[in-house]
Amino acid sequence: MATLLLGLDIGGTKSAAVIGDTDGTVLARVSAPTPQGSWQEAVALLCDLSRQVCHGQGVAVSDMAALGVSCGGPLDSQTGTVYAPPNLPAWEAVPLRSLLEAEFGLPTRLENDANATALAEHRWGAGQGCRDMAFLTMGTGIGAGLILDGKLYRGRRDLAGEVGHAVVLPGGPLCPCGKRGCLESLASGTSLARMGRERCGEASLTAHDVCARARRGDAIALSVIADVALYMGIGLANLLHTLNLERIVLGTLAVHAADLLLEPIRAATQAHCWPRVWEGVSILPAALGDAAQDKAALAVALL
Amino acid sequence: MATLLLGLDIGGTKSAAVIGDTDGTVLARVSAPTPQGSWQEAVALLCDLSRQVCHGQGVAVSDMAALGVSCGGPLDSQTGTVYAPPNLPAWEAVPLRSLLEAEFGLPTRLENDANATALAEHRWGAGQGCRDMAFLTMGTGIGAGLILDGKLYRGRRDLAGEVGHAVVLPGGPLCPCGKRGCLESLASGTSLARMGRERCGEASLTAHDVCARARRGDAIALSVIADVALYMGIGLANLLHTLNLERIVLGTLAVHAADLLLEPIRAATQAHCWPRVWEGVSILPAALGDAAQDKAALAVALL
Repeated sequence: MATLLLGLDIGGTKSAAVIGDTDGTVLARVSAPTPQGSWQEAVALLCDLSRQVCHGQGVAVSDMAALGVSCGGPLDSQTGTVYAPPNLPAWEAVPLRSLLEAEFGLPTRLENDANATALAEHRWGAGQGCRDMAFLTMGTGIGAGLILDGKLYRGRRDLAGEVGHAVVLPGGPLCPCGKRGCLESLASGTSLARMGRERCGEASLTAHDVCARARRGDAIALSVIADVALYMGIGLANLLHTLNLERIVLGTLAVHAADLLLEPIRAATQAHCWPRVWEGVSILPAALGDAAQDKAALAVALL
Repeated sequence: MATLLLGLDIGGTKSAAVIGDTDGTVLARVSAPTPQGSWQEAVALLCDLSRQVCHGQGVAVSDMAALGVSCGGPLDSQTGTVYAPPNLPAWEAVPLRSLLEAEFGLPTRLENDANATALAEHRWGAGQGCRDMAFLTMGTGIGAGLILDGKLYRGRRDLAGEVGHAVVLPGGPLCPCGKRGCLESLASGTSLARMGRERCGEASLTAHDVCARARRGDAIALSVIADVALYMGIGLANLLHTLNLERIVLGTLAVHAADLLLEPIRAATQAHCWPRVWEGVSILPAALGDAAQDKAALAVALL
């Protein structure tokens, strides 16, 4: 039998268990709403989903080579403990890895979702073959996973990659984190929508609406796109000057609105980079699509 | 005989050859002005200095265990090639490591001076015992060396650590690099002096003068110090959110004007950091003093 991996993707609203192989192919998947009460209920569900997905494939959980878990941070990947992520506030210091190891007896690894997705894009997606890269989400917030010298770089407490909270405009917009002018307050999907609402004077505009108007040539929507690309470019250029990366992979908005954003982001990044730093850098949309979260959990199993 | 290391520190005006041991103790040193003509003359001088320093100790160059070279960048540490640093403009694509290996037959390593000093501070100075740190100069410019997961991180082309050219104030002062609002244009020794001259309306003020006035309580000089500390704090907080470091070691101005700058820089960094990112971080002045460049070359020999 080929080597099989078990992956758990824990989200604030839904969680999934997947079986995959070492090529990142997802062979089976089950999912269910994440229980919103105690973390004990949620962990029980994760165990149920793991058994279900294996049962459906006619195998036992113990046939799996390893278990990888992708979950929102903050968490401690060394001890395998989850510390009350914003989307799972009841999970205060949950020793998730120990619990799952005790339940299933599998080698188990836990990583935050940005790091897990960076691992998957590096192994199977747009980051293949490069040594130094960053994967960034541009969704509700901006977070990154860093692959440096070919390996995941976590930092002291798994907080490396919080580039969304690097300040790129002192005194700029208030960020949900409480600071002003963070990259996230200027270039996330949420910020794109906010800037659209402010500039159009319409209280219900979404990021999707702003992009649709920009595609029709609306000047205000295009000004929002231009500013998001400008600040993202500054943020990426700063990252390139700090880490001299070879590739940057962008998710979420950069995938859904690649037609609007990708070239302006590349141009703004180049404009803020030394030629020597920019030379040979590629900025690519994430390649794993809807399967990214599943593959992220599988990539963690391979650590 | 104890293991002896040979180090070469190549500067734009002076170069030195040192003999040291694996504890970083400098046992002997000779130096001379760096020839300003062809690079061939300069390399000949480096070879002479190497022989001289060994001869003075009654040993041969071939008794050395390894040779480490610290030089201004850009350079390629893998091939050992120097690419016309600003302070050595005639050095266009000089295969320095090959030349020195051919001359002396020693295992030879070459690193840029910021990376070399980071290695030395990590091994023997203020960075001892920590896994993730940055060393930053605050002199003519701002450059950094990064130790990540306990190892020097160079990036794709030895350009990692160019944090002086991360933009922290879009549209800010013109930087010598041609961009606006780079950290270096707001928080280097050069920038401190420039801000002093601008605000005092005196064309000949140096960084030293501004610091002397600040120590006497001069309000304008103190405003310059406060702004330098503010932007340095933003730059360091951005670095901490990106890399989740445990320690930052600051050289040059942060050593010479530690009394004025260190606490305000710490306060500004903390003010721009998430509590979780800031917790347990130390920001320390460089500890190797006048011997830093010599020890930097020796640390490269130990790679």
